Amino acid sequence: MAANTFGEVFRVTTFGESHGLGIGLIIDGCPAGLDLDLTFIQHELDRRKPGQSKIVTQRKEDESFVIQSGVFEGKTTGTPISIFIPNTDQKSKDYSHISSIYRPSHADFTYQAKYGVRDYAGGGRSSARETAARVAAGSIAKMILNGIGVKINAFVSQVGHVKLDESETLDLTQTEENMVRCPHPQTAQQMIDLIMDVKKSGDTIGGMVSCVIEGCPVGLGAPVFDKLHADLGKAMLSINAVKGFEYGSGFRCITMLGSEHNDIFINQDGNIKTKTNNSGGIQGGISNGMPINFNVAFKPVATIVQGQNTVDTMGKDALAEGKGRHDPCVVPRAVPIVEAMAALVLVDHFLRNKTIKL
Amino acid sequence: MAANTFGEVFRVTTFGESHGLGIGLIIDGCPAGLDLDLTFIQHELDRRKPGQSKIVTQRKEDESFVIQSGVFEGKTTGTPISIFIPNTDQKSKDYSHISSIYRPSHADFTYQAKYGVRDYAGGGRSSARETAARVAAGSIAKMILNGIGVKINAFVSQVGHVKLDESETLDLTQTEENMVRCPHPQTAQQMIDLIMDVKKSGDTIGGMVSCVIEGCPVGLGAPVFDKLHADLGKAMLSINAVKGFEYGSGFRCITMLGSEHNDIFINQDGNIKTKTNNSGGIQGGISNGMPINFNVAFKPVATIVQGQNTVDTMGKDALAEGKGRHDPCVVPRAVPIVEAMAALVLVDHFLRNKTIKL
Amino acid sequence: MAANTFGEVFRVTTFGESHGLGIGLIIDGCPAGLDLDLTFIQHELDRRKPGQSKIVTQRKEDESFVIQSGVFEGKTTGTPISIFIPNTDQKSKDYSHISSIYRPSHADFTYQAKYGVRDYAGGGRSSARETAARVAAGSIAKMILNGIGVKINAFVSQVGHVKLDESETLDLTQTEENMVRCPHPQTAQQMIDLIMDVKKSGDTIGGMVSCVIEGCPVGLGAPVFDKLHADLGKAMLSINAVKGFEYGSGFRCITMLGSEHNDIFINQDGNIKTKTNNSGGIQGGISNGMPINFNVAFKPVATIVQGQNTVDTMGKDALAEGKGRHDPCVVPRAVPIVEAMAALVLVDHFLRNKTIKL
Amino acid sequence: MAANTFGEVFRVTTFGESHGLGIGLIIDGCPAGLDLDLTFIQHELDRRKPGQSKIVTQRKEDESFVIQSGVFEGKTTGTPISIFIPNTDQKSKDYSHISSIYRPSHADFTYQAKYGVRDYAGGGRSSARETAARVAAGSIAKMILNGIGVKINAFVSQVGHVKLDESETLDLTQTEENMVRCPHPQTAQQMIDLIMDVKKSGDTIGGMVSCVIEGCPVGLGAPVFDKLHADLGKAMLSINAVKGFEYGSGFRCITMLGSEHNDIFINQDGNIKTKTNNSGGIQGGISNGMPINFNVAFKPVATIVQGQNTVDTMGKDALAEGKGRHDPCVVPRAVPIVEAMAALVLVDHFLRNKTIKL
Repeated sequence: MAANTFGEVFRVTTFGESHGLGIGLIIDGCPAGLDLDLTFIQHELDRRKPGQSKIVTQRKEDESFVIQSGVFEGKTTGTPISIFIPNTDQKSKDYSHISSIYRPSHADFTYQAKYGVRDYAGGGRSSARETAARVAAGSIAKMILNGIGVKINAFVSQVGHVKLDESETLDLTQTEENMVRCPHPQTAQQMIDLIMDVKKSGDTIGGMVSCVIEGCPVGLGAPVFDKLHADLGKAMLSINAVKGFEYGSGFRCITMLGSEHNDIFINQDGNIKTKTNNSGGIQGGISNGMPINFNVAFKPVATIVQGQNTVDTMGKDALAEGKGRHDPCVVPRAVPIVEAMAALVLVDHFLRNKTIKL
Repeated sequence: MAANTFGEVFRVTTFGESHGLGIGLIIDGCPAGLDLDLTFIQHELDRRKPGQSKIVTQRKEDESFVIQSGVFEGKTTGTPISIFIPNTDQKSKDYSHISSIYRPSHADFTYQAKYGVRDYAGGGRSSARETAARVAAGSIAKMILNGIGVKINAFVSQVGHVKLDESETLDLTQTEENMVRCPHPQTAQQMIDLIMDVKKSGDTIGGMVSCVIEGCPVGLGAPVFDKLHADLGKAMLSINAVKGFEYGSGFRCITMLGSEHNDIFINQDGNIKTKTNNSGGIQGGISNGMPINFNVAFKPVATIVQGQNTVDTMGKDALAEGKGRHDPCVVPRAVPIVEAMAALVLVDHFLRNKTIKL
Repeated sequence: MAANTFGEVFRVTTFGESHGLGIGLIIDGCPAGLDLDLTFIQHELDRRKPGQSKIVTQRKEDESFVIQSGVFEGKTTGTPISIFIPNTDQKSKDYSHISSIYRPSHADFTYQAKYGVRDYAGGGRSSARETAARVAAGSIAKMILNGIGVKINAFVSQVGHVKLDESETLDLTQTEENMVRCPHPQTAQQMIDLIMDVKKSGDTIGGMVSCVIEGCPVGLGAPVFDKLHADLGKAMLSINAVKGFEYGSGFRCITMLGSEHNDIFINQDGNIKTKTNNSGGIQGGISNGMPINFNVAFKPVATIVQGQNTVDTMGKDALAEGKGRHDPCVVPRAVPIVEAMAALVLVDHFLRNKTIKL
Repeated sequence: MAANTFGEVFRVTTFGESHGLGIGLIIDGCPAGLDLDLTFIQHELDRRKPGQSKIVTQRKEDESFVIQSGVFEGKTTGTPISIFIPNTDQKSKDYSHISSIYRPSHADFTYQAKYGVRDYAGGGRSSARETAARVAAGSIAKMILNGIGVKINAFVSQVGHVKLDESETLDLTQTEENMVRCPHPQTAQQMIDLIMDVKKSGDTIGGMVSCVIEGCPVGLGAPVFDKLHADLGKAMLSINAVKGFEYGSGFRCITMLGSEHNDIFINQDGNIKTKTNNSGGIQGGISNGMPINFNVAFKPVATIVQGQNTVDTMGKDALAEGKGRHDPCVVPRAVPIVEAMAALVLVDHFLRNKTIKL
């Protein structure tokens, strides 16, 4: 019912609005005995942080955090882990001009219609600020996954018409070397140039984040409804601005024949692998040990500097005017969010899998 | 944890294997007082039924069903509705040849790896036969939605390279007029021809199902994790053979500017609408009253007549040989399944929405 | 929301009414690889069966069952296990006389008020017939628990004023040796005599079932809300006719001092035990390895032969007349139900416990 | 799985340890549009507060709280409400002496055994300090219930052998007039005297809290597993130190005949009521509009000043010595906790009931 909790065993509940005291989360179900690496949590939050480069919003948030429970002498205790991230740049006055208008392609109208009341400051709960809580939770999920050899790497694969050449082998260690988080330096530069152009014109642009997961154990995913890719899909679609999800061959499968799409099983040094990976590492909803890969489409940010026609809360014509501090393109900061949500899905299914056999 | 239940308020739990006694389901949470239309349930099951035309599998299943509980004098009572659909064509012997091999791109390997045991007859639980239970449940969801004016129409929009021209206005009343379920007669014929060609060559082909939902009330969808499109996405991705989901502008949003993507609000006779519908009827994860639309990509069926190399359960080289009765293309029979899953998502959020305001 | 499912990992969903086609259940989350003992399931159903002795209802139900899914070659496969128990003695005509009246202390009035419609035949869903499904599910839970050395023994400890002497050591192997299921033969005879007297007078009488669980591993139970005794309490209180639950010292604790109530820890051959067991085997909501014990109070059956004043569905004065086939005292048949519900709680927490530590 | 969340629609997740930064909670699912009365929240927290009188622990906690989200301009918005209650008296040093011993009848041993690690300071998560979060959440539930005329009144009905005379009519407005919260002044004084005596002897004593709920709408409760009394029972049993729960006739029903136990229906000015109320306001698991009443047994607090034999974490003999600041009897401070948990159950079922009929 209440929809601010994600996961079955490793359960994350987030709270907080863009311009309130802060945002935060509780993880209930994190196994006891994990050495919590606070530096890593901060590192992940910093990857999502506003103001980190010229191609993202220039808002300033410290993204410092406080762990309020669930940890004793540096170790998780199996009790709920509560993390609070204070808001440090919530200029409520900035938003008074939007209290009575519905910004195009924002959630203003639908929140008002659904709840009969809304926190209009900065989008309130619908603000992407909420994703900081996901990144914090995901960083703890990653610590557990790291301990079993799972590596999750997301990167920007497309901005507008500038896209990674799929035929090239990617060096994913390059992803964090540039501000757009594309692992191919030349393509990255083109993406940055495009984003800067779009920004200058007061507009925004869409993009795509791709993700590769290596080292995932065989057997994760829970048919029939909680297939691994179904849960990954939901996780990604729950991120602000996402419009599409595909895994493995994705939408390309539509034009393929079964004889070319099927992944032939082979015995590789005693391990069963597949020659190709159109399955994207998942068969029948269960991981098969091959790399898991998927793509996530992000729309252009709805806040634009250009004035737009709209209506106000009384249904009268009005003008929506964007104020300065927004992202011209969301994908550079979406990379750690995609990884975090993937980590939450995987760690949950990893734990769920412990009860499946006698 | 256990993953055979879908929904929060209108909860559907399915059971059954391809070659067991039958498949079935329990709906727990169906409101009391619904007049149950048994003819409509049968009608929906028949739309999914094998053997309905020359372009689908020639297996014969009656798809008769029995309602075992939850209905009294034709009305739902608010108690669990149990429906059983006996298997009538489960030739277990047909499948003995696959007991020890892993068929490419099937779930044989992953089920064995996950559970340590598997019902290999006809794919057991991983068989698409399970979707008959979804269609039965979905037909009851549709009855409720029909009562509030919601219309769900899915159709085949692409088979291989043959696709519907998006610029044409669709007449969705035509969908059921041809065996491929494409609302454009000429395109439908091309699709049928293509499927017959593929079938003759012993191969299979992918396709796309699109869905349009009209009359959805404003306010359905539950941020932040159970956004309406996130739940629709999970629902679709949980259907066998699905590889991708997009809604509204979908993957096309990647190359769009904010100024062209944003949907301008207008006041239409006192109702707030948008001029365009790149949002696909959903903003901030909540329905805004515009038509909801989405696309679902289906891979080519993994069972092909042509022999394929693979390994057996001991990891030794083996040959997988498809037997005759499979679908050359899954999308014609997927149309009612997509509608059913959409109906389950909508009815659940419709009921969830009743508790949201004082 | 929907409330016909019990358990988190080992999830049981029951369905069916007293006078419909039958009752049944789905277990979703039973681990794969369990050898299913069909004889034991029948044995447990027979312990609950009507007509088994002169002190219980003389209705005749075969309690034969069909396993419809989730089992392959005698082993559970990790997929949903569906069990159907046909109703064989549903004389619907018997109940037409109660269609328009509210029987005292039955659920007729509240079901009608809540759902606006009710299946009045034999109490419909509110009939204790539903507990047969619980016993079937519990028998599978017991198979798993048996494999880890857990023994659950319930017995009748009181009928009316006839109660077991607590100071005597009980020989629980005697429980099934008499028709009232009290492990002390002399007391059992007094209970039987009392029940026969009550029956002759057309009345009914209350009773108590006690339960002892030995061999429970240390560590089961999930603070803070799903404490082991809280889940046991809910399980017992969800059984028809239960009015009270206590564990360990129970209500006697009210008059005790801390210094006499506290259970002193001792080291017994390397295992930490307690000298006394006022904790009833559970401390802080978690099993401590000592025997778990609890008591469950059952009210007298509401159906009595004597005529009773009441009102009809229009609010007019009416007379409720009991027909013959009811239990004069519910506790003899409640013993296997108490055990089954205890088994469901324990197996669920046993599985839940597998994810608690790294 | 994770067990720190209570409720289905009105979902409360608590966190925090006795000696950490603080405790807190998230309510997810509180309806939008509620005017939040901060004074009332504080009032309820103060009723549970340590140090409020001479018969409770002399620890000092301010119990000030901060609302971090979910409220805008004084109204709930339908988004998660997060409340933080800082710990102000967490003297960690006080507890170093218990880091290596298992205190009798505390949760030290079981937490260590279950999780492999424990926060020993003040009992960590197992401390009754957690119940402050429940009281805060319950106060918001009460605001909603108050709006529909539901009144929840708990009171102390027994301390040791001093008990309320059940034959007397209670004036529940007297409950808060004395420090033990017994509505009968003379009995209250006897209870206070007894508690002071026990305290002087360095011991503790058990007690009983009773609760009466008036104005509950007909129709709350969800058969078959979430019967209203089953959920109330679980709620109460999840409170620290509770050993038993009974409702309506409770354990007294054991010795009653059906003919005396059955509650005869009558038509009272057009409303269907019952002459007696052995059902305790609940029939078939659903509220029938009569007052709901139940009793909760609390054991004597485990911390006593007298030294007690025990073992340490290595299994060696040790001595547990209680330090001063504990409650000699828990029931006076348990009254608001019982009310809070009852409110959480009722508000949840009130909201759940909105989806039950078409």
